Amino acid sequence: MRGQNPVFIPGPTNIPDSIRQAMAVQTIDHRGPAFAGMIGPLFDDLRRIFDSRDAAIVTFPASGTGGWEAAITNTLSPGDRVLATRHGMFSRRWIDLCRRHGLDVEVIDLPWGEGACPERIEAALAADRSQTIRAVLVTHNETATGVRSDVAAIRRAMDAAGHPALLMVDGVSSIASMEFRMDEWGVDLAVTGSQKGFMLATGMAIVAVSPRAKAAMAGAGLSRAYLDMREMIAATAQGGYPYTPPWQLFAGLRASVSLLLEEGMEAVFARHARIAEGVRAAVRAWGLPLCAARPELFSDSVSAIVVPQGFDSARLTDHAFATYDVSFGAGLGEVAGRVFRIGHLGAMTDVMALSGIATAEMAMADLGYPVTLGSGVAAAQAHFRATAAPIRAKAA
Amino acid sequence: MRGQNPVFIPGPTNIPDSIRQAMAVQTIDHRGPAFAGMIGPLFDDLRRIFDSRDAAIVTFPASGTGGWEAAITNTLSPGDRVLATRHGMFSRRWIDLCRRHGLDVEVIDLPWGEGACPERIEAALAADRSQTIRAVLVTHNETATGVRSDVAAIRRAMDAAGHPALLMVDGVSSIASMEFRMDEWGVDLAVTGSQKGFMLATGMAIVAVSPRAKAAMAGAGLSRAYLDMREMIAATAQGGYPYTPPWQLFAGLRASVSLLLEEGMEAVFARHARIAEGVRAAVRAWGLPLCAARPELFSDSVSAIVVPQGFDSARLTDHAFATYDVSFGAGLGEVAGRVFRIGHLGAMTDVMALSGIATAEMAMADLGYPVTLGSGVAAAQAHFRATAAPIRAKAA
Amino acid sequence: MRGQNPVFIPGPTNIPDSIRQAMAVQTIDHRGPAFAGMIGPLFDDLRRIFDSRDAAIVTFPASGTGGWEAAITNTLSPGDRVLATRHGMFSRRWIDLCRRHGLDVEVIDLPWGEGACPERIEAALAADRSQTIRAVLVTHNETATGVRSDVAAIRRAMDAAGHPALLMVDGVSSIASMEFRMDEWGVDLAVTGSQKGFMLATGMAIVAVSPRAKAAMAGAGLSRAYLDMREMIAATAQGGYPYTPPWQLFAGLRASVSLLLEEGMEAVFARHARIAEGVRAAVRAWGLPLCAARPELFSDSVSAIVVPQGFDSARLTDHAFATYDVSFGAGLGEVAGRVFRIGHLGAMTDVMALSGIATAEMAMADLGYPVTLGSGVAAAQAHFRATAAPIRAKAA
Amino acid sequence: MRGQNPVFIPGPTNIPDSIRQAMAVQTIDHRGPAFAGMIGPLFDDLRRIFDSRDAAIVTFPASGTGGWEAAITNTLSPGDRVLATRHGMFSRRWIDLCRRHGLDVEVIDLPWGEGACPERIEAALAADRSQTIRAVLVTHNETATGVRSDVAAIRRAMDAAGHPALLMVDGVSSIASMEFRMDEWGVDLAVTGSQKGFMLATGMAIVAVSPRAKAAMAGAGLSRAYLDMREMIAATAQGGYPYTPPWQLFAGLRASVSLLLEEGMEAVFARHARIAEGVRAAVRAWGLPLCAARPELFSDSVSAIVVPQGFDSARLTDHAFATYDVSFGAGLGEVAGRVFRIGHLGAMTDVMALSGIATAEMAMADLGYPVTLGSGVAAAQAHFRATAAPIRAKAA
Repeated sequence: MRGQNPVFIPGPTNIPDSIRQAMAVQTIDHRGPAFAGMIGPLFDDLRRIFDSRDAAIVTFPASGTGGWEAAITNTLSPGDRVLATRHGMFSRRWIDLCRRHGLDVEVIDLPWGEGACPERIEAALAADRSQTIRAVLVTHNETATGVRSDVAAIRRAMDAAGHPALLMVDGVSSIASMEFRMDEWGVDLAVTGSQKGFMLATGMAIVAVSPRAKAAMAGAGLSRAYLDMREMIAATAQGGYPYTPPWQLFAGLRASVSLLLEEGMEAVFARHARIAEGVRAAVRAWGLPLCAARPELFSDSVSAIVVPQGFDSARLTDHAFATYDVSFGAGLGEVAGRVFRIGHLGAMTDVMALSGIATAEMAMADLGYPVTLGSGVAAAQAHFRATAAPIRAKAA
Repeated sequence: MRGQNPVFIPGPTNIPDSIRQAMAVQTIDHRGPAFAGMIGPLFDDLRRIFDSRDAAIVTFPASGTGGWEAAITNTLSPGDRVLATRHGMFSRRWIDLCRRHGLDVEVIDLPWGEGACPERIEAALAADRSQTIRAVLVTHNETATGVRSDVAAIRRAMDAAGHPALLMVDGVSSIASMEFRMDEWGVDLAVTGSQKGFMLATGMAIVAVSPRAKAAMAGAGLSRAYLDMREMIAATAQGGYPYTPPWQLFAGLRASVSLLLEEGMEAVFARHARIAEGVRAAVRAWGLPLCAARPELFSDSVSAIVVPQGFDSARLTDHAFATYDVSFGAGLGEVAGRVFRIGHLGAMTDVMALSGIATAEMAMADLGYPVTLGSGVAAAQAHFRATAAPIRAKAA
Repeated sequence: MRGQNPVFIPGPTNIPDSIRQAMAVQTIDHRGPAFAGMIGPLFDDLRRIFDSRDAAIVTFPASGTGGWEAAITNTLSPGDRVLATRHGMFSRRWIDLCRRHGLDVEVIDLPWGEGACPERIEAALAADRSQTIRAVLVTHNETATGVRSDVAAIRRAMDAAGHPALLMVDGVSSIASMEFRMDEWGVDLAVTGSQKGFMLATGMAIVAVSPRAKAAMAGAGLSRAYLDMREMIAATAQGGYPYTPPWQLFAGLRASVSLLLEEGMEAVFARHARIAEGVRAAVRAWGLPLCAARPELFSDSVSAIVVPQGFDSARLTDHAFATYDVSFGAGLGEVAGRVFRIGHLGAMTDVMALSGIATAEMAMADLGYPVTLGSGVAAAQAHFRATAAPIRAKAA
Repeated sequence: MRGQNPVFIPGPTNIPDSIRQAMAVQTIDHRGPAFAGMIGPLFDDLRRIFDSRDAAIVTFPASGTGGWEAAITNTLSPGDRVLATRHGMFSRRWIDLCRRHGLDVEVIDLPWGEGACPERIEAALAADRSQTIRAVLVTHNETATGVRSDVAAIRRAMDAAGHPALLMVDGVSSIASMEFRMDEWGVDLAVTGSQKGFMLATGMAIVAVSPRAKAAMAGAGLSRAYLDMREMIAATAQGGYPYTPPWQLFAGLRASVSLLLEEGMEAVFARHARIAEGVRAAVRAWGLPLCAARPELFSDSVSAIVVPQGFDSARLTDHAFATYDVSFGAGLGEVAGRVFRIGHLGAMTDVMALSGIATAEMAMADLGYPVTLGSGVAAAQAHFRATAAPIRAKAA
């Protein structure tokens, strides 16, 4: 019987029933009071999730990639210079997208497994005497390698260089799962999507825009219309939308945001950290390295695990799906065949994570990996027991 | 008890339960075989709905407006000339969008209530000796005025002028509801969305692309990345997607397309025509004119009704919603306050339409309109009775 | 496209989305705290719906018929005498059920279309000098004929006769739709089901039990086990259930009861009365009599309409379903072929009712009935306009 | 985030999405053709699940307990003798129910953990020279102890004794999960419910009735009305129902039966046996005994695990729920506090089972049980790997 197990891809995530039901709402008139009345409070609540007091919230019917595009086309002009680090599939794609829109991207290349490097960013900005670099692009959580970059440190680097570039952050696989402090970190454009920490269907790009980024829109020369932020901000401020809004996703977002805020963002972050650490304990028990180079880079939403020499991770993920009906993330790009990924964000629980770990063990064993059945599970169990919620009864 | 009545806006439409359930599917791995295996047959079936043998099918996570943008940015270059008729809110918006992308739009202005005029298009093209006009833009069904333009006649006009411009058609509120013959009419880019005839949630732009339009992509100089068609076509040909696909909408689209093809497109068109004619019979009985200037322009998906002098249609639609919990389409743009609209596309039935007609009557009467209660209903009933399906038992 | 129209049967009723979703909840452990914690507050709220301070609430996984059976088998003994009026299909069935359990039923037969007659009940009780009649059975709302009996008057009759019999009321198609005052009317056992005013799926019998009726259980000699009330009352008092509870129906009931109480029971009754009167206005306009003999008997949850001589109402309901996909209630029992019924209880709105009225008109016209298209609709519209909610804007 | 984990109670079981959606169907007219047309084919298919050619199928809106009651009240008379073995909570309850209906139950008491004993049944029947015993009651799968009795052997014992008693089997937690052969085993009344192997909401008792049992109904003197089988059989034969049918459960049952038959009943049994054996491997690895006395008694739908001396299994199940949000079955009746139960029937997968096993390990460790983390998981993994479906890729 297929279709009963959770997925362990790093997004889209398993959708809780309450959110699926919220998205299954019947059509209403999007020009009527129900839609108009929901926008203001919803955007206020989204600001709490981005941890920003003043950011403008923009939502497009688009994937996260549309959010990236909106971030640059609304604030930059053809030929503008941007600085970006490239250390995984998604940072690479964002750079490609910039180039397709005629931006001049200065790339800091780092090994996959590394995170965006504040020192090199600072150096590059310091070298930009004429301050022609208009934006620094950072992938907060590189989904391909399971690497979290230190956005706060990058802000400090920018400040140290005294550079006025905008700080644009891809938080698609971090926001609403991992710590994110838009205002404190001085983020100017924070991009995310509906299908990760928000546990919704794919189809909504959610972008938070700082006052500085908003001010930059006036002079931005890149063309945009569908993804025009000023039009969107103006329309939603009136409870409207520049075109037909994705009502079902809004209804789902309302439910999701309420769920997150009810739990509390610090608790949400802690929950993800706890589960991630359990998965990492399993990986250590297997004797396998993570793709992420150092502990401080470890992502709490996805772990990319390097398979032993001589093994093909694509066979592993195929096999796990074919035999156990469990989907793990395949290795992408440079690490295709060399890593597989366990997504552990969204509505994941410790118990669900254990089933993913156990399945990975079976699949690896089936394919001759040198792992001991139950070893990863036991390590994760130990972590989960040690960190179980305070409601936990004490041992006899 | 609010929320029990159907909506009578011209899209998003009332969603049948079976389609809502199809869209409520849990997350799967979009890189796995289930998604890959669905794309080919689904796109084959979509070609049947567009009535095209060879069109490439492109679906973006976007509203219909995103589809418009994709149509132009993938085939045209900055400064390119396009010819467009403007005779309603949606034709106007498309023109605005073109201009924001730096196109040089030659506009044929017509009164709202008219359709795109083949004669003037032919004349404009004939006058374009150097054939620098790259595209003709037609709004097949102008949702604001309830006007259907004659796309086949426009194709004949283009052919008569011997002009090679691409024919781009906004079929957002016509395709899957009203007759559409992509190949026969020589349409090069046909744009629609998920939330009208397909009876889905908003969020997917669906575009069919002729081989000629596809060929034009190579030289197109407008920048695009998120809405890049070639990348999308290449990816979906492999069962993939250039970024995270909106899986729930795809699952819904699969259900919707099956439902439509099972009924048969000719039957779908006939159903819409029958219901539309019932609504028009009611409007005649009320003694009110349609916004559409002549019967051959009457839309089968939406009727825009002109309110008597001295009345404000916005009060009417507000009142109907406040008092009877029924949403009609408000007048937009030039006809704001002067028309209200009854949407009758998608999963509408004759019985549902009667409730909309009856409600409009009550609301008009409440506001002092000179209409006789029951008159519109009786006229619609007469039409519905006379055209009821063959399963209908004969009168005693 | 079938399946889009509301049903107009007198229950099961159209289920609002929010209640369907509530019933679609996943399995939980029914022995855990979620179930245990819901019972007490839910039963408190149900008492408000029955309008009783002290009644015990009993819910069985059963249809309303199971509720009837429980009422008698828990309080009576083989051979016990009960008094019942028979004036429709459902009063007849309850009598049959009593006889199958060996009760001695004294029947007051009345024409179908009449209600339970307080005078004759008083006479019968007065004649029962030895007071061997143990219970009086009343069908509050006879669904087959659309007749509401006057329970308060029957209580007065019982009191006038000074008779101690229990008063058992079948409120399956009245409770939660029409005024019901358990304590004020001195009802001892009030039986209803999930699928009418509660707008749920069929499958739960809901019975309210007065302290007197509860006291009668000790001496009741009829055998019962599955439907044993004392066991059920004892178990639910502890948050348990004597066997596996229908969790999904409980979850739905929780949602339904909240919805009803939020609207307020007086508002719920007024809403049903308003819609019923609109339907009756239509029937008068058609020139057709109701089956219910006099206005004070008219039910607010269902109208049974007598078709003209020479017509077969079964053909009418078949035809409406076959041709317009609308379900009306057929005539049952003695009035089979002679009446058809429009159910207007539950989540029905005025707008939905108009579509039912309009459909009935078309179907009647198709079959040659002497009715004028639109006449019933117009009459109902007039009533609905005149009684529209205070939010209604005043006419210009 | 609560509510994301599967339940491991031995029913109600985890409900697959497709079945939940099937049950979420809107109301239809139960007197119309859709309901009438579904009954015949559905009952044919149910016969395949009971593995009977000729059994009459009876479905009541009731829990399984209602099915037990129907079995006896439709075939027996007050004072009739029945023979039953008592070796668990559910066999005990059925006996109690018989006594409440005035039957004379001859009880064969066995230790909890034993199954119904063919030898003692044969002896009891042989001793019944006058053949006054009218029925033998067998609990096929005793849910409280995880014991499967050998119904075929009991039939052989009855035949050996040459005794004409009816064979009534409680298959609530076995049918549709574990091998069941109504005809081959000579079962006369087989009782089950919707919420176990059928993976539906609770609320439908499903009973299969042999021709002999049907013949016995004529002379049965126990009173019944709501649960009258002859009336039900007569009504459903016409596509009707004696009262309002639970339409949503019928729609769900249709989906469930199709799902089961598509998989194939032998495959369904094998799936349950495989998962059960994995759970048992885990239990062995923990060094804990099952409540079931011998391997041939092991149930494939639930495992009841005896906790070590000095531990209270109720604390364990409470703790697992409170700390890990996982529901296991508590110990019931005589084994309360001494066993906990892992339900593994219905839509359970190997992967889900591993998460249950892992959670049980954590919870036991938390409470000081002498179990090694990961030990049970590893044992189950080994079994699941060794028996994974043929689609499994071979190891490198």
